[in-house]
Amino acid sequence: MKLVSFNYEGNTRIGCRLENQIIDLNLACRSMLEADGVIRAAQIAEAYVPANMVEFLQGGDPSMALANKAVNYVLNSTEGFKYKVLQNVSDVKIEAPVLNPGKMICVGHNYREHILEMGRGLPPVPVVFAKFSNTIVGPQDDIPFYPVSEQLDYEAEFAFVVGKRARSVSQADALNYVAGYTIVNDVTYRDIQRRTIEWLQGKTVEGSAPMGPWLVTTDELQDPSGLEVVLTVNGEERQHSNTSNLVFSVSYLVEFLSNLMTLEPGDVILTGTPGGVGVAREPQVFLKDGDVVRIEIDRVGVLENKVKKVSEGV
Amino acid sequence: MKLVSFNYEGNTRIGCRLENQIIDLNLACRSMLEADGVIRAAQIAEAYVPANMVEFLQGGDPSMALANKAVNYVLNSTEGFKYKVLQNVSDVKIEAPVLNPGKMICVGHNYREHILEMGRGLPPVPVVFAKFSNTIVGPQDDIPFYPVSEQLDYEAEFAFVVGKRARSVSQADALNYVAGYTIVNDVTYRDIQRRTIEWLQGKTVEGSAPMGPWLVTTDELQDPSGLEVVLTVNGEERQHSNTSNLVFSVSYLVEFLSNLMTLEPGDVILTGTPGGVGVAREPQVFLKDGDVVRIEIDRVGVLENKVKKVSEGV
Repeated sequence: MKLVSFNYEGNTRIGCRLENQIIDLNLACRSMLEADGVIRAAQIAEAYVPANMVEFLQGGDPSMALANKAVNYVLNSTEGFKYKVLQNVSDVKIEAPVLNPGKMICVGHNYREHILEMGRGLPPVPVVFAKFSNTIVGPQDDIPFYPVSEQLDYEAEFAFVVGKRARSVSQADALNYVAGYTIVNDVTYRDIQRRTIEWLQGKTVEGSAPMGPWLVTTDELQDPSGLEVVLTVNGEERQHSNTSNLVFSVSYLVEFLSNLMTLEPGDVILTGTPGGVGVAREPQVFLKDGDVVRIEIDRVGVLENKVKKVSEGV
Repeated sequence: MKLVSFNYEGNTRIGCRLENQIIDLNLACRSMLEADGVIRAAQIAEAYVPANMVEFLQGGDPSMALANKAVNYVLNSTEGFKYKVLQNVSDVKIEAPVLNPGKMICVGHNYREHILEMGRGLPPVPVVFAKFSNTIVGPQDDIPFYPVSEQLDYEAEFAFVVGKRARSVSQADALNYVAGYTIVNDVTYRDIQRRTIEWLQGKTVEGSAPMGPWLVTTDELQDPSGLEVVLTVNGEERQHSNTSNLVFSVSYLVEFLSNLMTLEPGDVILTGTPGGVGVAREPQVFLKDGDVVRIEIDRVGVLENKVKKVSEGV
């Protein structure tokens, strides 16, 4: 299933993305339950399949199973629906799949070929740092370029979203704690990142984490390795690798992180970026107003955003 | 006002701390409104003075004003109350004042005398890093010492809590965006902090941010400078400085951070720690099972927690 957050008439809800339509999961669940004669259908749908992604993921397997059943009910139904169960993609705004994660954890230096080409040794443990959720924008949003720096850079990242509370999980069990996969552009104000020894301030500038276009659940994408990752700027290829080159795999990261802290449903973990970022090129090249940054990851999808210079603020 | 979060019969609520009692702010507000003949008193109290600290702070000045009015109503009332408006401190568990902040932002290298004694120059901009809210424990909790490292260290920190959404705020206006002040022990697994170039993994281990004992609001504590900060371990003084020694003041930090990102009500900013942490002592000394760490900050209060070794996990 491809899970999306979408905004319709000012309300953000979650849905299952089809070719040109979206099934509103909460209303689909309610409709299915009502068709089964369940009296408190609205309340049960609200409890198990709420319209907010983090809250839905908190429901775990029972919520995911009910959502899947509701999708099948809609796809196989020959009648109309009392509620707006189906939305045309063109009638809504697609937002980042997870809008309010409790944590966004980023991994640095994680693509093997890039580390080796830089002449460094493979790291013994992951380097991890944070972004906050103020950074999140959606697949239909621009990347705001605030006048706090001239060095705006891209970083294509394969990301996973936690599906169950995870503490001290082993690698063997790790993928059971993953809800699914998405794409994040770990947009970085490079000089701000590097002006102190800690990267946070250049990583968590407002709007610097375009995410999407959806969350591909683990029933559809079971193996997170072997996926091509390609980033282009205005059609020119800048980054190209494969998730098989990750030094620390998704399973490893679940074990590593969950042995330091509790991971919660909705937490987003960015697995690192391949070589080819703007600051490492010769000559260096940074993003500018109007640039179109496109990230494609096999079996996940395409995340494309335009850079838009903002005159003041953040 | 000293704002607390407290747990009574399994529910966490917020209150105003008196000497030996706590005024339940939501119920105080409801009682006051009912006494005034307001029909939808419960709903209005819930809207303006909800029982969750972050949601209460989101209400801004109107919510704070109503809470203050309700406190005065209770203090001046000569009759009993229909609801449990007053709790004995001994009947409840005091929790961290802010349990689910959207951001915890920490400042490193911020005490002038400590930087100079280390022979370093004053930094041109703050070093900032993150903790996540999984770290938060309360003033009556132990500091869990997980077997992920032997090097558990303390860091006394004066912290402020954001009271209004802040973007691009100037230093002159900054204190209007602060709800109040509290104490955080930025507990650090020192070797984990230092095994990579980014500190996050040693800073955000489960339970590593004891916070409290309350949030002193800015009507009671208007000037955050000139406050003595003292940390003892088992009664022995280890850190001692004054917030006047901060290189980057509270006002400066509000301006600096809000020019990179939106600060939201409930966000907690830790302003840095003085010299004297365990890892910098000769010989080095780390915390061990049973140690009592006590932080006192003038006009804020005392935060005291015992270290408790945990055999496995996190």
